[in-house]
Amino acid sequence: MESLNSHPRRQNPLDRPVDLVPRMIRQGYDRTCIDSRRQWVEEKTACQLPHIGRYSIDGEQMRGNIENPIGAVQVPVGAAGPLLLKGEHAIGTFYVPMATTEGALVRSYERGMVAVTRAGGASARVQSDENTISPVFSFTDIDAAHEFSLRVRDEEPNIRREAESTTRHGRLLRIECNATGRQVIVSFCYSTADASGMNMIVNATERACEWIERNCAARSHYIFSGLSSEKRASGRLFWGGKGKKVTAGALLPATTVKAYLHTTPERLVHMWHHTVIGHIHANSLGYNGQFANGLAAVFIACGQDVANIVNSAVGVTSFEATEEGDLYASVTLPSLTVGTVGGGTSLGTARECLEMLGCTGAGSAEAFAEIVAATLLAGELSMGSAIASGEFVQAHEKYGRNRPE
Amino acid sequence: MESLNSHPRRQNPLDRPVDLVPRMIRQGYDRTCIDSRRQWVEEKTACQLPHIGRYSIDGEQMRGNIENPIGAVQVPVGAAGPLLLKGEHAIGTFYVPMATTEGALVRSYERGMVAVTRAGGASARVQSDENTISPVFSFTDIDAAHEFSLRVRDEEPNIRREAESTTRHGRLLRIECNATGRQVIVSFCYSTADASGMNMIVNATERACEWIERNCAARSHYIFSGLSSEKRASGRLFWGGKGKKVTAGALLPATTVKAYLHTTPERLVHMWHHTVIGHIHANSLGYNGQFANGLAAVFIACGQDVANIVNSAVGVTSFEATEEGDLYASVTLPSLTVGTVGGGTSLGTARECLEMLGCTGAGSAEAFAEIVAATLLAGELSMGSAIASGEFVQAHEKYGRNRPE
Amino acid sequence: MESLNSHPRRQNPLDRPVDLVPRMIRQGYDRTCIDSRRQWVEEKTACQLPHIGRYSIDGEQMRGNIENPIGAVQVPVGAAGPLLLKGEHAIGTFYVPMATTEGALVRSYERGMVAVTRAGGASARVQSDENTISPVFSFTDIDAAHEFSLRVRDEEPNIRREAESTTRHGRLLRIECNATGRQVIVSFCYSTADASGMNMIVNATERACEWIERNCAARSHYIFSGLSSEKRASGRLFWGGKGKKVTAGALLPATTVKAYLHTTPERLVHMWHHTVIGHIHANSLGYNGQFANGLAAVFIACGQDVANIVNSAVGVTSFEATEEGDLYASVTLPSLTVGTVGGGTSLGTARECLEMLGCTGAGSAEAFAEIVAATLLAGELSMGSAIASGEFVQAHEKYGRNRPE
Amino acid sequence: MESLNSHPRRQNPLDRPVDLVPRMIRQGYDRTCIDSRRQWVEEKTACQLPHIGRYSIDGEQMRGNIENPIGAVQVPVGAAGPLLLKGEHAIGTFYVPMATTEGALVRSYERGMVAVTRAGGASARVQSDENTISPVFSFTDIDAAHEFSLRVRDEEPNIRREAESTTRHGRLLRIECNATGRQVIVSFCYSTADASGMNMIVNATERACEWIERNCAARSHYIFSGLSSEKRASGRLFWGGKGKKVTAGALLPATTVKAYLHTTPERLVHMWHHTVIGHIHANSLGYNGQFANGLAAVFIACGQDVANIVNSAVGVTSFEATEEGDLYASVTLPSLTVGTVGGGTSLGTARECLEMLGCTGAGSAEAFAEIVAATLLAGELSMGSAIASGEFVQAHEKYGRNRPE
Repeated sequence: MESLNSHPRRQNPLDRPVDLVPRMIRQGYDRTCIDSRRQWVEEKTACQLPHIGRYSIDGEQMRGNIENPIGAVQVPVGAAGPLLLKGEHAIGTFYVPMATTEGALVRSYERGMVAVTRAGGASARVQSDENTISPVFSFTDIDAAHEFSLRVRDEEPNIRREAESTTRHGRLLRIECNATGRQVIVSFCYSTADASGMNMIVNATERACEWIERNCAARSHYIFSGLSSEKRASGRLFWGGKGKKVTAGALLPATTVKAYLHTTPERLVHMWHHTVIGHIHANSLGYNGQFANGLAAVFIACGQDVANIVNSAVGVTSFEATEEGDLYASVTLPSLTVGTVGGGTSLGTARECLEMLGCTGAGSAEAFAEIVAATLLAGELSMGSAIASGEFVQAHEKYGRNRPE
Repeated sequence: MESLNSHPRRQNPLDRPVDLVPRMIRQGYDRTCIDSRRQWVEEKTACQLPHIGRYSIDGEQMRGNIENPIGAVQVPVGAAGPLLLKGEHAIGTFYVPMATTEGALVRSYERGMVAVTRAGGASARVQSDENTISPVFSFTDIDAAHEFSLRVRDEEPNIRREAESTTRHGRLLRIECNATGRQVIVSFCYSTADASGMNMIVNATERACEWIERNCAARSHYIFSGLSSEKRASGRLFWGGKGKKVTAGALLPATTVKAYLHTTPERLVHMWHHTVIGHIHANSLGYNGQFANGLAAVFIACGQDVANIVNSAVGVTSFEATEEGDLYASVTLPSLTVGTVGGGTSLGTARECLEMLGCTGAGSAEAFAEIVAATLLAGELSMGSAIASGEFVQAHEKYGRNRPE
Repeated sequence: MESLNSHPRRQNPLDRPVDLVPRMIRQGYDRTCIDSRRQWVEEKTACQLPHIGRYSIDGEQMRGNIENPIGAVQVPVGAAGPLLLKGEHAIGTFYVPMATTEGALVRSYERGMVAVTRAGGASARVQSDENTISPVFSFTDIDAAHEFSLRVRDEEPNIRREAESTTRHGRLLRIECNATGRQVIVSFCYSTADASGMNMIVNATERACEWIERNCAARSHYIFSGLSSEKRASGRLFWGGKGKKVTAGALLPATTVKAYLHTTPERLVHMWHHTVIGHIHANSLGYNGQFANGLAAVFIACGQDVANIVNSAVGVTSFEATEEGDLYASVTLPSLTVGTVGGGTSLGTARECLEMLGCTGAGSAEAFAEIVAATLLAGELSMGSAIASGEFVQAHEKYGRNRPE
Repeated sequence: MESLNSHPRRQNPLDRPVDLVPRMIRQGYDRTCIDSRRQWVEEKTACQLPHIGRYSIDGEQMRGNIENPIGAVQVPVGAAGPLLLKGEHAIGTFYVPMATTEGALVRSYERGMVAVTRAGGASARVQSDENTISPVFSFTDIDAAHEFSLRVRDEEPNIRREAESTTRHGRLLRIECNATGRQVIVSFCYSTADASGMNMIVNATERACEWIERNCAARSHYIFSGLSSEKRASGRLFWGGKGKKVTAGALLPATTVKAYLHTTPERLVHMWHHTVIGHIHANSLGYNGQFANGLAAVFIACGQDVANIVNSAVGVTSFEATEEGDLYASVTLPSLTVGTVGGGTSLGTARECLEMLGCTGAGSAEAFAEIVAATLLAGELSMGSAIASGEFVQAHEKYGRNRPE
């Protein structure tokens, strides 16, 4: 590594020699280019990267998914199941691919899935499905901002026409204006079919915004205002808008809870109450044991945009005792951002993982959302039970990695 | 898939035949077992999984990281750099491995890194470093809860001795009691050396809790209360406690901003103001363009526990114009959960990616934290500039994937 | 005071003698009853309450506003102004009654009002106006909950008819269903004319819920779920629904800022940036200097339900420098809960304070909302400037009370 | 009201004639001045303010509490009780003064108090007691900010000496630094004895900051950063720091719940679960039925700074069924800002209300905090029961005001 001995402002920063990563011909996506680039990195960083070179995805297929490719990383993947699911879109028994390096995770989800399956299976429903982007427009004063909001409402048909002219699959469902001072945030809510659709709606909205600037007395805009909370955790996500709002639930007889989860409905409800207070105290968004674990494992396996787990993990788990003494467990994910086309979904292992779930082809995104929700339900049951029964530590000792020491 | 024709409660759920994923001998980690299990899954799900079978990690090495392994998934990895960094622990020029399938992401981070490097490099500082777990104890009334809190404070030396008896590397830094009604949440804050250390501190704390139950008039506890916000987004994370609190910053001359980022310091500050309001309106935790993107890409590449991006992404980006008209940009991550030993860090490609960064061996976790923070700084600069300049859409059209339609 | 020497469970709790506050004939609202009750309290608590007895409100008029009355408390009230306002509903120069015991508060608001008036006045706009209540219904499983949501949407006309049958002034604007697990929260959004209208919409909604239980396969409900955030601070309030969403703004020339506020637009913007980060770090809802101060003082004076300041104070202040170097300042209050009829608005001093503002009679609630917003704008300017200029401490020393020591 | 016919920028704003409220000799606090000022306002606003003129507080006593006084507003006050309390500082039976115009409020709190008293009384504990102010310092880069944080820690004894030199009662408990980018927020946490103490700690901290600027390489600061969340709702308040952290709880036998609250422990727990989910969905801070109601009524009566209800209302109510089938109810208020000296506490009716509670003299603030917490507990029980039993609407019809129509 090079030495540092000058203050940043003492030299002309534009003169400093900078070793760029080689781009090569046509951005360098064939195996030769990828290998050559990896060798360049090996030399620069004085290390060997043989495993990174052992990938099976066609290099050219990576175009549009990555730049400066040097190969692929491998993440171990396990199969968790069986998961019996009676959704509206996903019906049957599933084995869910989970890519992780956290020991005990797959075993824990499997335990929850078996309990759910033994109990007769989970149900799932997609309540709404849309993707939102929220550009912001500026004005000279609040009066002009207010006028603009009224104008946009009037022009909604024209704005929709412009937006939809850029896409075959996207539909602009509605437009909402929120003024804060002399700025107006305009939320564009789309249906994006089986894609998570971010590129689609950015393009459509940019076109719409250009029309608005020409026709609605707006001077300029930023394409993102932050209001739609993409890849961010926010309270706003409870109102949906970043993908599927999906619920999964299951009724587990007390005997099943005892036999497979080693606890009781009462104890789970007691634990729920106590940990809800912990979440409230922490000012957590939502309440759940660990949606993030299951989301990360399934998203990595299935070629989803993994950064979306940040918004997707905002949701609620509920454990309730029924009058008969059984357990009703549910998860609610208001903003689950998933897709079964586009993004990384067609690449090698990702495509295979989606096929494992039967989630390819038209109309498969909602089924995938239901499977994800039911998977999280199983995980919440298993982890919640481990906490409620006091078995959490043992479970991790049995399946976890030898710890670093 | 099996048919569903009975109400869950109508049959004895324990009688239902369930096809478990084969565990095999010693849980089945050698290549033969993994291959055989994958074939079983292929049959069950009626699909082919050849890419998943093309892994190079030694099967036995996966033990402790995954259960029911069927192979590995591949995620394309690109090299972003050069990133000139003058941290306290990481000093030099780095090329950062980023595993993603989101087109334009690596190119965008690279652009920010080049701008930072041209400007003389970024700085970074680790302000604190600890990992917390927060069990909850119940009592009959608030009086007993109050007494317990006082008692725990008195017994801190004994509790520390118990906790530390389970670990060679972990150190219990302090204990904090928070009573809510008749429950007391006891937060145990540890130093965990180069590991993210979750298993380490769960074990230590379970031991300490057993001692507390025997000696402090407590009847029972749950090992997690939710207060520590592991793998969850919460306001509490701003007070640190889930890993490194780290800051990175850089001064970019206006000329550099213009040449490499195609905008001006004033415009970036203007954009910051507008999008902060969007974040506030959404009730977002923190403010940043998209920490989640960079975190996900580096975490997947470097064998981190990817679910931790949910808490790690809670932080703040700031763009400020200096009196001289230049830009000072910074990122602050109060709870960056990373490690360079333990978890998935020693597996094949993960180990190689950490080696690319020189982040192996004792004392490397803080350097890794500084590199991650500086990487996010570069990403915020590039993405922020794309929004400020209006180039965001073009950039994604150039590098993004052919959209689904 | 009585001694305490028995454990609560050792005696029959229903046997304990309890001295109830005397209710007297017809609940005791005439002056004789009020005086007699006050004397009873004086004896019980061994103190004298002469000031509390020096009220001028007619006792019988208190019926419906208070129970067990013993008199009235007095809060000093000052006049702040002139405030030049060019709203849509409130146009002219106003002197605002502020009831407080916080020294320097009235002087500070007055300073901001003078600055705004010197600059040509403030503008204000009511963007929306509705009041929401959100009962929750329970079901046996998520499937039934989902069905119910669809059913409620279909039955909206019938539900509206039932709700509106209970009120002459209220209008049910729309119904929204949010399912979480097997519960469905149904939000009823009303227009309530000049009243804040809580009693009105509780009655209307209870009627609607009874109809729903009879007709939509629902078993039971709770009239409040907490979702509407009445008298609570929440992120949801940014989406409106608890009263008026109102904005006020003013352009202040740099010379005015200098002459009356002793600072500069640049300095105010700098302060804004720094304190926004403090708010983000604290995980505050919204951003403002101290809406609560102005809201409390005006609400107490004008007979508003003071507990509503908790939700009304969730909002955003923005300071922006214009290209010409002047200041544009604004406040946005998404959920300002105010009324000019009903509640305490007709009682003695409250009625007088509303008359000072010209806010009595039909259609006055929106004007009142604009005046409140402009008042807060003035306060934010004054307090923000005191912080920006470093004069805050001096100002409080000059006007504040002799401190307790 | 004057007409508006010119654009704000078209005239010299400094030339506009502005009618200031008359200040009079020595700021005008004697009755003649107050009467004369009120008449001036009556003329300006064309209305009569006789009730406002019927105050009994000595005018000169208002100095330091209000500017531009025109009299006082009257708020009806009722007595709620008996409340049997077994706190650490408040022991006995209390009758609580509540000033409100919300019909049914006093009756509802009274009902809860009677139930608590019948059950043997409430308990209460003050867990911590401090007041915090958080100035922010700026630096050229993150390196300097980091150095500064370390320096402040080293200089803590000197900084404490400076701060405490300004006050006889205040004690600086500790200093905490939080860097965000190149800014450092320094939180000063004080013990303020019986005062809420805001003026005290502002002065002490300003002195300390001047010392820091001279001795710690800091260039400038703002005295408020927003981090301490005074008069604002934030997640940070759960960590205390704005007054007393206080808990109150009571065990209510099922028979008492039935007899006085018309519901059952099970039903209350069921309601708690459902409404917690509503709060989570709304992204509320904390969970409670309506702390704000009780806080507002007691604060107005007892001369507290009413704007502080915004931060004080952030807390948690819990209802739990015991193994014996009884109810344990509790409230936790992490940041209850109250005082029994200073502010408005010595004015006429306020002083009398504090005397009703026995909360005057040294050491009374903690007793007052316990009484407030127990009062809120009673209110939560009563309101929660009204919702759980479905009696809420009837109760408000019986005691509420004739609605506006």
